[in-house]
Amino acid sequence: MPGIGPKSAQRVAFWLLKVPDEDALRLARMIVEVKRQTRVCTVCFNVGVSEICTICADTRRDATVVCVVEDPRDVVAVERTREYRGRYHVLGGALNPLEGVGPEQLRIRELLYRLDNDGIREAILCTNPNLEGDTTAMYLARLLKPFGVKVTRIASGLPVGGDLEYADELTLGRALEGRREVDA
Amino acid sequence: MPGIGPKSAQRVAFWLLKVPDEDALRLARMIVEVKRQTRVCTVCFNVGVSEICTICADTRRDATVVCVVEDPRDVVAVERTREYRGRYHVLGGALNPLEGVGPEQLRIRELLYRLDNDGIREAILCTNPNLEGDTTAMYLARLLKPFGVKVTRIASGLPVGGDLEYADELTLGRALEGRREVDA
Repeated sequence: MPGIGPKSAQRVAFWLLKVPDEDALRLARMIVEVKRQTRVCTVCFNVGVSEICTICADTRRDATVVCVVEDPRDVVAVERTREYRGRYHVLGGALNPLEGVGPEQLRIRELLYRLDNDGIREAILCTNPNLEGDTTAMYLARLLKPFGVKVTRIASGLPVGGDLEYADELTLGRALEGRREVDA
Repeated sequence: MPGIGPKSAQRVAFWLLKVPDEDALRLARMIVEVKRQTRVCTVCFNVGVSEICTICADTRRDATVVCVVEDPRDVVAVERTREYRGRYHVLGGALNPLEGVGPEQLRIRELLYRLDNDGIREAILCTNPNLEGDTTAMYLARLLKPFGVKVTRIASGLPVGGDLEYADELTLGRALEGRREVDA
């Protein structure tokens, strides 16, 4: 389990031995339930409890914009901002040839299908701003352009509340490069 | 002294008592020298050793772009990126009414003078992306626009190598808001 090393594992194991039977049983049942009820959305591949996730099913959301992310966790992160009102597409990872993750391992074909059929006007490439995420974004940008959709990439730059002095050179370089005209 | 608390101060004091006289004397002389030789550039207000700093004196640098920063330390930060080839303007701080820093306390009049006389075409507002820096940038944007120069602000967004999951909501919100079209 992520975040649980040998010491934590032992602590959990002994805790399990100590709790009443019904509590352990309830936990076991909940694990089974979670696995049984969780579905992957057939449209965007986000996790949910039905064939189509709550975001794809929400007709008030803008269906012409799709935010392309690596993982369901990234959907949670973007939702937390409360700034985005469009749909998502979960790739299921990022290109990583060294680890054997090529375009076929990601839900790229399914994204192209959506672009062709769902009236999408803008694809926001919201993969992580690291090597794999940037590579994936570049790859997708080339692939998506011929579909006639607007392809955008989230901004790299200084975090809000940050300080120039503590920014690394690469980030400050990108912040300068990505500067935008101010409408005052 | 910044970064030197009572404990460090005591350590330095006892070290000074222990070192040979000539070493202590040399340190004292260097402090005097630094104070004596350091000048503030009469053009951009960066620190240097002559009336005009090395950046302002460098004719190979683009004199039509000015990067407006709070402190000389920020000049160092931007120079480290090796991406910027224009000039600077050091404000000497950021607007902070609570601490009594208004427009008169900053070198804003001097900036306007440069815009009027130095053939500047773009002003990059490179103040820190925090409350004071953002306020200063907004104030300057309104002030500078009538001069007919392009006014830009450095990008806020995810740091390079970062992860969506660990970004705070404000930063991720700005990264989304500041997304740019990809030229693929």
